[in-house]
Amino acid sequence: VKTAVIGCGLIGGSLALALRRAGRIGPVVGFDPRAGARAKERGIVDEVAPSAGEAVRGAELVLLAVPVRATASVCEAMAPSLSPNALVMDVGSTKQEVLEAIERFLPHPERFVAAHPIAGTERSGPDAADAELFVGRWCLLSPTAHTRPDALARARELWQAVGARVQEIDPEHHDRALCWVSHLPHVVAFALASAVGAAAERDPTLQGLSGGGFVDTTRIAASDPVMWRDVLLSNREALLEAMRSLDDELSALRRALAGSDAAALEQLIERARQGRRRVVGERK
Amino acid sequence: VKTAVIGCGLIGGSLALALRRAGRIGPVVGFDPRAGARAKERGIVDEVAPSAGEAVRGAELVLLAVPVRATASVCEAMAPSLSPNALVMDVGSTKQEVLEAIERFLPHPERFVAAHPIAGTERSGPDAADAELFVGRWCLLSPTAHTRPDALARARELWQAVGARVQEIDPEHHDRALCWVSHLPHVVAFALASAVGAAAERDPTLQGLSGGGFVDTTRIAASDPVMWRDVLLSNREALLEAMRSLDDELSALRRALAGSDAAALEQLIERARQGRRRVVGERK
Repeated sequence: VKTAVIGCGLIGGSLALALRRAGRIGPVVGFDPRAGARAKERGIVDEVAPSAGEAVRGAELVLLAVPVRATASVCEAMAPSLSPNALVMDVGSTKQEVLEAIERFLPHPERFVAAHPIAGTERSGPDAADAELFVGRWCLLSPTAHTRPDALARARELWQAVGARVQEIDPEHHDRALCWVSHLPHVVAFALASAVGAAAERDPTLQGLSGGGFVDTTRIAASDPVMWRDVLLSNREALLEAMRSLDDELSALRRALAGSDAAALEQLIERARQGRRRVVGERK
Repeated sequence: VKTAVIGCGLIGGSLALALRRAGRIGPVVGFDPRAGARAKERGIVDEVAPSAGEAVRGAELVLLAVPVRATASVCEAMAPSLSPNALVMDVGSTKQEVLEAIERFLPHPERFVAAHPIAGTERSGPDAADAELFVGRWCLLSPTAHTRPDALARARELWQAVGARVQEIDPEHHDRALCWVSHLPHVVAFALASAVGAAAERDPTLQGLSGGGFVDTTRIAASDPVMWRDVLLSNREALLEAMRSLDDELSALRRALAGSDAAALEQLIERARQGRRRVVGERK
């Protein structure tokens, strides 16, 4: 199966390595203006193409692993040379905008399967690619009314071959749910890292004093800025609503603190503890 | 060295285990109405006393490991039976309020050394106690103008014996700095866990969808509510100011998002990434 990988960073690179190791793909052609050369050095792709259109020529499988807002222009660029039978999959963190771009710019949107592996880390680029990245992780597939059943079945099989557990979810539900468990946590980590970073500029001794709490709370603030800019913008409405809900929680904490209301404060912390348990279960 | 441990949870229990293993302490008497019996079962203490006053009778070393706002009443309770030569140390996350309680309620505040090991986790109670907890971690000592040099030297030596690296820091500077790298991250984690927990009540599918980002960002939201209620209240002013700074960062993100300002959003995320690096260095 000749394969094209458009975007050879953490996720695209890891998926190419994992599919290759599972014996599911043949020669891999990559396109990535920033990271293509390095991806070839690392053995992620066999060949680097000068454009998305060149990369997909003759490919039976096309993996889109670009920042979500680049999906439209990439589809536009590759549409003329895309084989009519190719299976196209993305790996983006939001689905509704991606699917609009697909419907608009791909000649055969029925052969596209929207996929989102819940496997990102704060690392990025081909050097972070890892064939084991998807083992035991969820991959969410968001078929539409037009998606061909054979394309969906093949996508499912490929993700299972790299060790992922597959779950189907409606695109609108996907974006609303991921807003809470992923996009809002990123916004919070960005705000916290910026506030504390500014304080550390005023007081350099902060550097030696941070413990595991700060390190973990802000780990995802080290994520790729272009990727996350796109994710946040493409889920704008849901995210603005989630931020209002976060504000309400912060205001409640502020009121309890400003009023030195120990009982209210303890209750709010207990509520946080229970809320977390509701979402992550017994995982640590 | 007969030792009293007032509060036998994660930190008190770990310190008793670690000092015992290092051969620095003799018989250990504990006092902890909630966790005393369990601490004895785990071999953290040899004996459980019915009160703080009984626990410290004849002790040459007294370890206070209670929620910071319990310091005053514990000191009041143990003052009459405290040996005049005993070294008393706390392990609290804030220092100024603790030191006020010490000056007011201990007969010999010059033999008290304020200590804060940067080694907490989201776990709590004697079952979480671990003799290795302090290895390679910072322990901050905050001597005052009254602290006896021999008491300070002895405290330093004890923390080094359990593997900690010791650093001195002025109490006011301690509270201001820890506000940024520890207390504000906890507030943020509490607000986030509550907001997402409430969303998960409305949409139970969220439980299966959270990845490492949410788990890490909210890990410290699982911390002990009573302990953290006290820490936050005892650093109220600094924390309210830090929360205003967090609000400013959230507002900037909200404005960029609401205005679909991609350049501003990318810049804010890049700023967060750099801010984090300034605080944690190259650690992951």
